[in-house]
Amino acid sequence: MGRGACVWFTGLSGSGKSTTAAALVPLIEARGREVTVLDGDVVRTHLSKGLGFNREDRDTNVRRIGYVAAEIVRHGGISVASVVSPYRQTRDEVREMVGPGFVEVFVDTPLEVCEARDVKGLYAQARDGRLERMTGVDDPYEPPVRAELVLTTTDTTPEANAERVLRFLEERGVLERPTAAGRVMGAEGS
Amino acid sequence: MGRGACVWFTGLSGSGKSTTAAALVPLIEARGREVTVLDGDVVRTHLSKGLGFNREDRDTNVRRIGYVAAEIVRHGGISVASVVSPYRQTRDEVREMVGPGFVEVFVDTPLEVCEARDVKGLYAQARDGRLERMTGVDDPYEPPVRAELVLTTTDTTPEANAERVLRFLEERGVLERPTAAGRVMGAEGS
Repeated sequence: MGRGACVWFTGLSGSGKSTTAAALVPLIEARGREVTVLDGDVVRTHLSKGLGFNREDRDTNVRRIGYVAAEIVRHGGISVASVVSPYRQTRDEVREMVGPGFVEVFVDTPLEVCEARDVKGLYAQARDGRLERMTGVDDPYEPPVRAELVLTTTDTTPEANAERVLRFLEERGVLERPTAAGRVMGAEGS
Repeated sequence: MGRGACVWFTGLSGSGKSTTAAALVPLIEARGREVTVLDGDVVRTHLSKGLGFNREDRDTNVRRIGYVAAEIVRHGGISVASVVSPYRQTRDEVREMVGPGFVEVFVDTPLEVCEARDVKGLYAQARDGRLERMTGVDDPYEPPVRAELVLTTTDTTPEANAERVLRFLEERGVLERPTAAGRVMGAEGS
């Protein structure tokens, strides 16, 4: 059994958190490990149904996901969370809860790029005044100051970013490096 | 690493679920395993804050706990839940979610005994009409029909009941039996 870890993707809506997470999960599973996916939107439909988007409700949502992630890590499991989690202090609380297995990954996509993508149409709604408290528009996003990894998505594919997270998990000893028959290791893996 | 399991204590308020769970946890930990305690009352303060006691809210609470328990089992971990979980169908949903690691333990204490104990004063409140939807008073409790274990608490101590659950986990292969230097096995352990 390997070590537990929580890969926590944080960033604006549309930054590419869930896409990167979706690319990462099969890479971890290919190493024979189970993964619990804690996607902010998915989790809201059952774990946090009924919560809104004011600061208190956002914090409750983030702490609940953090609680589940922390318990999974305690049992040596791996969870991959993708949650806007806009407030630094609340992310730091989750870091505290999870312990050394916490890997904060800042998906650092500029607001204008996220807004141009606008996959869910939320930015358009926010600009029209149909949606309040949209992170990046009329609610703050506090970028991490000590993220384990910072990813850019304008010049890098989700697959390449997922590989980078995978290598980080190897370096941390969460995952074992494949040997011999496995894929060839890049020089940066050493 | 051993196998995952969810020990799910169900029964009336005051039946002795949490007391038995509290006696069980150190026994499991003594075998070198981590345990996540999912106590209905504790969980309500963070995982399910704001939920009430109508059927829908009770079910949401039970399903959330079941979700966390199921994820822990998936990673090979052990969780011990003590939740009234009065409705059979909802418990069976949790059984489905968790899979073969689910161990339903019915703490079968008669209502009159629970009411005489009334540790939290809830039965008195319910009889006075100050509390509505109290399980066993004006809300139903549907006893399990296929519980893995049925415990009585009027003639058995919490410690003896906890030992019985421990032996069941050994028989299921969730925990390894201690050998040689460990404690002497009872004949029923074979």
